[in-house]
Order: sequence, then C-alpha cells, then structure tokens
Amino acid sequence: MAKSKFEYVRAFESEDRCLQNCWIVVRIDGKGFSKFSDKHGFTKPNDDRGLRLMNRAAQEVMAQHRDIILAYGQSDEYSFVFNKGTNTYNRRASKLMTTVVSLFASTYVMQWPQYFPPDTMPLQYPPAFDARVVLYPTNTNLRDYLSWRQVDCHINNQYNTIFWKLVQEGGLSPRDAQEKLKGTLAADKNEMLFTDFGTNYNELPEMFKKGTVLVKEKETTQITCTIPPKPSSSGDNADGEPQEQQKIINKTISKIAHLHVDIIKNEFWKTRPHLLGDES
Amino acid sequence: MAKSKFEYVRAFESEDRCLQNCWIVVRIDGKGFSKFSDKHGFTKPNDDRGLRLMNRAAQEVMAQHRDIILAYGQSDEYSFVFNKGTNTYNRRASKLMTTVVSLFASTYVMQWPQYFPPDTMPLQYPPAFDARVVLYPTNTNLRDYLSWRQVDCHINNQYNTIFWKLVQEGGLSPRDAQEKLKGTLAADKNEMLFTDFGTNYNELPEMFKKGTVLVKEKETTQITCTIPPKPSSSGDNADGEPQEQQKIINKTISKIAHLHVDIIKNEFWKTRPHLLGDES
Amino acid sequence: MAKSKFEYVRAFESEDRCLQNCWIVVRIDGKGFSKFSDKHGFTKPNDDRGLRLMNRAAQEVMAQHRDIILAYGQSDEYSFVFNKGTNTYNRRASKLMTTVVSLFASTYVMQWPQYFPPDTMPLQYPPAFDARVVLYPTNTNLRDYLSWRQVDCHINNQYNTIFWKLVQEGGLSPRDAQEKLKGTLAADKNEMLFTDFGTNYNELPEMFKKGTVLVKEKETTQITCTIPPKPSSSGDNADGEPQEQQKIINKTISKIAHLHVDIIKNEFWKTRPHLLGDES
Amino acid sequence: MAKSKFEYVRAFESEDRCLQNCWIVVRIDGKGFSKFSDKHGFTKPNDDRGLRLMNRAAQEVMAQHRDIILAYGQSDEYSFVFNKGTNTYNRRASKLMTTVVSLFASTYVMQWPQYFPPDTMPLQYPPAFDARVVLYPTNTNLRDYLSWRQVDCHINNQYNTIFWKLVQEGGLSPRDAQEKLKGTLAADKNEMLFTDFGTNYNELPEMFKKGTVLVKEKETTQITCTIPPKPSSSGDNADGEPQEQQKIINKTISKIAHLHVDIIKNEFWKTRPHLLGDES
Repeated sequence: MAKSKFEYVRAFESEDRCLQNCWIVVRIDGKGFSKFSDKHGFTKPNDDRGLRLMNRAAQEVMAQHRDIILAYGQSDEYSFVFNKGTNTYNRRASKLMTTVVSLFASTYVMQWPQYFPPDTMPLQYPPAFDARVVLYPTNTNLRDYLSWRQVDCHINNQYNTIFWKLVQEGGLSPRDAQEKLKGTLAADKNEMLFTDFGTNYNELPEMFKKGTVLVKEKETTQITCTIPPKPSSSGDNADGEPQEQQKIINKTISKIAHLHVDIIKNEFWKTRPHLLGDES
Repeated sequence: MAKSKFEYVRAFESEDRCLQNCWIVVRIDGKGFSKFSDKHGFTKPNDDRGLRLMNRAAQEVMAQHRDIILAYGQSDEYSFVFNKGTNTYNRRASKLMTTVVSLFASTYVMQWPQYFPPDTMPLQYPPAFDARVVLYPTNTNLRDYLSWRQVDCHINNQYNTIFWKLVQEGGLSPRDAQEKLKGTLAADKNEMLFTDFGTNYNELPEMFKKGTVLVKEKETTQITCTIPPKPSSSGDNADGEPQEQQKIINKTISKIAHLHVDIIKNEFWKTRPHLLGDES
Repeated sequence: MAKSKFEYVRAFESEDRCLQNCWIVVRIDGKGFSKFSDKHGFTKPNDDRGLRLMNRAAQEVMAQHRDIILAYGQSDEYSFVFNKGTNTYNRRASKLMTTVVSLFASTYVMQWPQYFPPDTMPLQYPPAFDARVVLYPTNTNLRDYLSWRQVDCHINNQYNTIFWKLVQEGGLSPRDAQEKLKGTLAADKNEMLFTDFGTNYNELPEMFKKGTVLVKEKETTQITCTIPPKPSSSGDNADGEPQEQQKIINKTISKIAHLHVDIIKNEFWKTRPHLLGDES
Repeated sequence: MAKSKFEYVRAFESEDRCLQNCWIVVRIDGKGFSKFSDKHGFTKPNDDRGLRLMNRAAQEVMAQHRDIILAYGQSDEYSFVFNKGTNTYNRRASKLMTTVVSLFASTYVMQWPQYFPPDTMPLQYPPAFDARVVLYPTNTNLRDYLSWRQVDCHINNQYNTIFWKLVQEGGLSPRDAQEKLKGTLAADKNEMLFTDFGTNYNELPEMFKKGTVLVKEKETTQITCTIPPKPSSSGDNADGEPQEQQKIINKTISKIAHLHVDIIKNEFWKTRPHLLGDES
C-alpha cells in the first residue's frame, strides 16, 4: 500500500537487542499488590489461591515460549529465564518483556475465577504488572540471580510468618509487631514462632518457604497399541485367520512441572544438566 | 533485612530513562490477532464489539495514568501519548511500556464478557500484546506520528472494506479478491464499492474510518444545592423560622471522551491548545 | 573475501544511533589537565597560548565536519553542536564522539609547537580527552546548554582570577586564598580585585570572560579578473589588437570565525537566524 | 559555586555503563587511512614504520590503563581488551572509548617524527580514528573475536601481498590485478607469489602476517646492591673497619611485550593462563 509522507516517523524507533550469548531474564512484579491483596481478601502472610494463580499464569507464558528454560516465582513476582541463545523476537528487549507481561496479566485475569470462585470473590479491578529485562553473562551469574530471589523469598516469608502471628493471634498492632521484630535474627524468629505460637517453621508448606520453580520435564508413558493383521497376499493361508498384534510404545511428552525445591544448592542443577548446558 | 551475597546481581540491571523533554509514545499491538479474531468470530472487516473493547481497555489505562494526554486506537493497536514533561516511573521506558501493556491486557480480558456475552462467545484463550516506546522531540513529530497511524487506519479500512465485500457478497476467493484489487487507487475502490455493492464509503461508521481518539475533557454541570439555614445566634428572630436556601454550583469533572475525528488537520489541535502546549 | 567461522562475533556490536531531530552535542574535556597545565608551565588563571591552541584544534574539527554549526570552548573543554538533521555516520553516537575527540587530540599535538615553541616548552607527554554525546530536543534546550557552559566559564574565571591574585600577588597560600573567598559573592570578588589589586574585571580579555565561539561565517570579497580578448575570427581587423577586459566578481568564501561574545542573550542568535532555523 | 538556572540540561545526559562481567573491547580504526597512507608515502602493502608507530601508540594506551590485559593490532586498527571485572570510569562506554582513542591519536602524532624523520616525511595533516565498544560475555567469545581479527589480518595481507606484486613488479594496472585475483584461493595466491615473483609467503615478516599482540610480561632481573656497613655503636671494634656487604636482589618489573604470534590456537593462552582467568 502507498506510503504516506508521515512515515518518516518510523526512524525515531530505536533498537534494543539484548547482547548475544547472555541469559535473558524477564522479571515481572505486581504493581500495587499490597492494596490488591487487601481488596481481594488474600490470606496473610501467604494466600495459597493467589500463589497458585500466579503459577498458573506463569505456566501459560512458559508453554507459549519454548525458549524459556525455567521460571521462578514467589510472592507477587515471577522471573522467566530465556535460553542464552534464543532468537525470540530477534532478542529485542521490548518485545520480550511486553509479550511476557501482557500474556501473564491476561491469563491471571482469565483464570481468576478458577482460584477465586465468582460467588465468593469476583475480581474487583484489573491488576497491572511491571517487567524488566536483565542480562546475565555466565551460568554462575544466572544461578546467583535465582539464588538471590529464593533467599529473598525465604527471608520475607520468615519475617511475614511471625509478623502476622503476632498481629492475628498475639493481638499486637502492626506497629508493635514491627517493633518487636526489629533486630531479631532468623533463629530468634523461629524460636518465637515455636514457643509463642506452637508453629514449627520447617513444617510450613514448601511453596511458602521456597517459592515455585517451573521446568519442562519429559514424561514417558507406555501406550499399548493394537496393530491390525496384514491382509494375506494370497488366499492360501491354511493356518486360518491372520491375527491382531499388541505392541507397547514409549511415548515421551513434555510437561511443565511445578516444583517447590531448593535451587541455591548444586543438587537441583546437577540432576538437570540440560538446563544450563556447557559454558562457552 | 539482611543482604545476601547474591545481591551483587542487581548491578546487572541497566538504566533506560527516556530523553527529557520528548513526547513519550507507548504503542501496543495485538499479538497474533488475525488468528485471535478468527477464533472469536469477529465480524470482517470491522468488529464493532472488538473495537469498543479495545477502547474500553485503553480508557482504563488513560484513567490510571494522568500524564497520558491522548490515546489513539485502530484495528488491534493503541498508542498512548505521555506528556513530554512526565516523570512517571522516572521516565524509565521498561516500566512505562510494561505497566501500560499489562493493564491493557488485564482490562481487555476482564471486560470481555461485557462486549462478548459468555453464552455467545466466551474468551477462548488469553490474548497477548507487544509494546514499544518511541520518543518524539517536537509537536510536529508527534502530530506526524499520529497522522501516520490515522492514515494507516484509513488505507487499511478502505482496502479491507472492498476486499471483504468481494469475498462475502461477490463470491470471490480471497486470492481472487486480492488479485482484483492489485494496483487500484483509492478512487477506484470507492467506485467499485458503490457501483458493485451499493455502498457509499463515506457513510461507513466514523470509528471504522478514523479510529478512536481518547482525550480527557472537562465537563461542567450545574448542581443545585440546598443550604440549611444558619441557626440564629439569638432567639429574637421575629420573622419566624430561618429559611433554607438554594444555590446553583458549577461543578467541573474530567471525563475521557471517545472521539472518531480527524486528527491530521489543524482543527482538532486548534480547538484543544492545552494538549500540545507551547514548544520550548 | 572468505568469511571465517569467527565472524559471528560481529553480532555482539550494538546500535547507538542518536534520536532523530535532536541537536547532537559532542563535548570533550581534557583528562587530568590540571596536572597537564602544571607540567607545561601554563600561566594561571588563564594561558592565552593554551586557549588559542584549543581553539585551533576545534577549528580543525569544525572544518572537517560541515554539519557542525557551532562550537563553544572554555578552559579545557569544547562543545561541538551538530545540526539536528545531520546524517553524519548515520547519527551513530560512538562514531561521532570518537572521530571528533581523536581529531581534536591529534591536532592539539600537531599544532602544539606553533603555540609553545619547542625551544621553550616542548610537549612532555601526550594529552588525552574524554568525550560524550548529549541530545537536546529543542532550540531552547540547546541554547540553555550553551548558556550553562558560558555561565560556568564566567563563574570559574571570576573565582580563579581573584584566587590567583591572592596567591601570586597577595602572598596567600592556596588554602588561605580559598578560605578568604568562601561565601563571597560576585560583587565582593570584583570589589576585592579592584581595591586590593587595581584590576577591573570588566577589562580582562573577552576570551577569558566569555570563552570562544566558533561559527562559520560567509565573507564576500571582490576579485578583479582579467578576461583575455577573443581571437578575431578573421585576420582583417583594421582597428588594431583586440583588447583585454577587466571584470569584478563577488566571491563568497566560508570562514570559521573565532568570537568571544555573549551567547546567553538573544542578540547573538537574532543576528544569525540560520544557526537554529525554524523549529518543527 | 552557585548553580545556574540552566543546569537542568545535565539531566539530558544518558548512562551507558557496560554490562557487568563481560570483556570490554575497545577497537579503534584509522579514518580515511587509505588516503592518509598515500599522502605519507607508506610502503605497499605494509609499511614497517607505520605499523610500529601504531604499536607505539597502543603501548602508551596500555601503559596508562592497567586494566587492559591485551591489545591486538593490524593494519590501521587496534583492539584493546579490558578485564571483565574492570571498574575504570565506572564501565561507562563513552569514557572508555574516548580516552583510549584520543590518547592513541595524540601519541601517534607526538611519536610520528621518531618513525618518519621530519626531513623525509613530516606529518601532513592530523589523523583521526573512530572507536567502538563491544562486549563479549565468555572467554570463548573473546578469543573468537581476536581470532576473527587475526584471520582478517592474514587474509588481507595475503591478498595485498600478491596484489601489489602484480602492480609493482608485474606491471598490471590495479584493475587488472584485481581481476586476475578474483576467485583465487589462498594456495593459488601463494603459488603465484612463489612462481611469478620468487617470494615465499611464509618467509615474510611475522608482524605483517600475524599483526602485533601487546601483553604485559613480568621480567625478573638480578640487581647487585652494595649495603653500607652499619656504623658501630661503640668505638671498641678491635677488628678494624666495618665492611660493605654485597647482596643480590631479584627485581620484577612489568614490561609491555610486542609479540607477533598466533593467538588463534590454544598455545598462546595456555602459556599465559592469567590473561583470561577462570570463568564464572
């Protein structure tokens, strides 16, 4: 079609291709989710439905982007790791972060009623998320990034668990609870939790303590097939009817697993060497 | 809270602040919307419900970002113009485009049932949108950008209108219709439309021909207030009861208007001088 | 020629094109010039030779880049303003700043002996300069940038003039001079300069107070040409020899003028309307 | 000092910090060096003096930037490799490339007379160089970059050697020489060089075939020191005069070595494991 005299404005767009051979992380964060969770009656300090809805939205993103090798989520944030060699959208940062964040948001809203039944808690208003792209040149840098997020999950969860116990069961005001926790160490908090509220931190759900890791895992199932008999080429088969045969086939399908495991230590990575691959 | 040894990875994030004193345009585009509109039975060449849903989502974005002075939408795209002096998110491009696109997407899904009743067309799968940030230094550049989009709307609509007439009413295959239109001028298409299908292009809905412009407009309404009588300070009011008074107040409220008008010519801008302001 | 398997590394280069329709300023700064001027016996607070050498190097840069409309220098810095529509090096920031700064540096060294005769002060070591690119969208922004640099020149020069008087003629230590000037206003400094040292600030050389502005100015000179007589077509010219003719031609040449004038007020710009042109 | 109302223009500067944990390569290229070498009578295809002057300028850059671990030069280009962990100029790309390129240029001019004696070939005009910054995330990427440049050196040198033989000794016009070489392989060129001109390519100077690698190498020299006798604290030394002592000290100094060796194969790197270090 004809080009207009206004078309020169395209030249004002800028390139934003990510450096080659770096891990590309897209991290999204809920915008104003403290208010959002209040308005929607989220359980404190962790709302199981809310977290699983986040996981559900992340799964959709991962299913549609085959170059995402792993996603990690906790609280109102999710990180998606694109393979360092990906050419998705020509590695353009804008395209990567906006398609990820918009698909996440639209899935979050679409799946809301599956996690918050409409008769109990309809969605009050549309949520927003921000997103950023961060590049990590080496496997160590990438693992340290993910470790940083999982440590963050752990520290926040530990703090929030005892904080809300003090408020909900201990009768303290939020300010007093905050004051009481100032300067306490991890061990102090666990002790307080156990002594004052009979709660063993280690027995809390793994999803709360470790967040959620999404990885694509191959699953092999055995399928029994019935193979119809070959029609005999000549009619002189004295032995009677040709017979059906049974055959067992191994079928491999790729599934997105939701794990609540430690990704800081080596074990997770050693058992999944394909995730990071060789460095070069 | 304690900082972990992994926190160094934050230094890998990069700045992406937009140049000062430039208009910031965030343009979003539906991803794979040709398939999306097929799967959801959109009327060709224009689906009134689909376009109004886009407008509804854009309105939400505009309502939540007071530094957006104007939005322009057509087909499956929408452009949001942030004031050149905005400090929203410190002018960080990533933040601007991702919060806009995710709010747009989540509103689109949330409002879907208002435009496509669930019993007739429930949402089949979550849509995605990409987004980009483009900077325009001058008012002329910005107006030329918007003109470019509106010319694009016009040219595409003219082509699609006759194309689908040929297919839907003329019985041509899409390929034959395409062939027939090759090399035709605007006037040819309008003539063909009128002669062969009795349709006057100029009488088509303005929203289809011009797209939709969102601007914040002030509306003044007169409210009649009843002012209760002052209690008399002394009891010596011989005239009897103090009387209620009626007062008429002008109240100004800001509304987001949906316009389907020409934004290429000067008139639109001359009658709204506050939009672009003085250049300096 | 054959491409090697290593050539993929080119894809790691990134684009850095400057936004269209913005003024492009390349500013260079001497690196460690406080030490450099000490080692080369520069007169304090201003060394006439050093400043004129800077101007000479800047002139070379301007002569080789026809899209530089103006340059402004003071102390050990120089700013080069490229036309907002320039396509030099495809507007690539790296190319622009590096060719400017390297040509400046090589000219500075090459011309050194013209300003510092070898028998008195040979160059001791090669100087370095850094450079940056800054974009300014409007004429006002650009003028404010240049005003910022000229105000900086003025304030520093005023301070340095009285500071070095106190040290060189007043016998104060640098620390004492600094202490004495702390908190003084411009008027105080001028007064001190006049009363204690009999120096009228306003009578100092304009180059010290205002810096140097380079602009291309057209100069028209009249050239007298001698036109040889046409050879007569026949030999029978009875009237004698054909005669030479004299003709006066106006020849316009472009020269780079070195001005030491105010570029903050309007006058400079009003008398040179071609520099900034119309804004659009 | 007082801030002026113009100072807001500083906010228009943009950040350009290089991604952490990547090798930073600054590559400079002579601008218009084909003309420059013509004007200065450079020997074709390689001018020994010109190449050694390039090396001299690069050495100066390397000596002043201790985070440059290696430099590689050939023809009119030089690449400087900054340590991946460098914090020089806060990793700002502009600062890195401009200080490198300007120091290179000023040294080139300053040292010119040492390589081209003034009575034979004074510098005709100041040369310019452009520069760029390229990031390489892994050791492999960096080595491939350097291999790319060395292969380029080899291919160009091979071509240029036979090309100039054909022109200078074979009497061909440049165009005919070019035509004759079209489509020839490396082996063809070497054969032609040997058969027609009696030149064995392998016997050409290594600097021409491999370019120049600059690395900092530690050199240990033994210094003999004379230690003066301790003055005896009391005068009662019956044995006579205290005696001088001789001591041999190992002194390690860092020198910049100019090597003309293969940096594509592993050997160079294996014998210098400190250059790249461990990857993480």
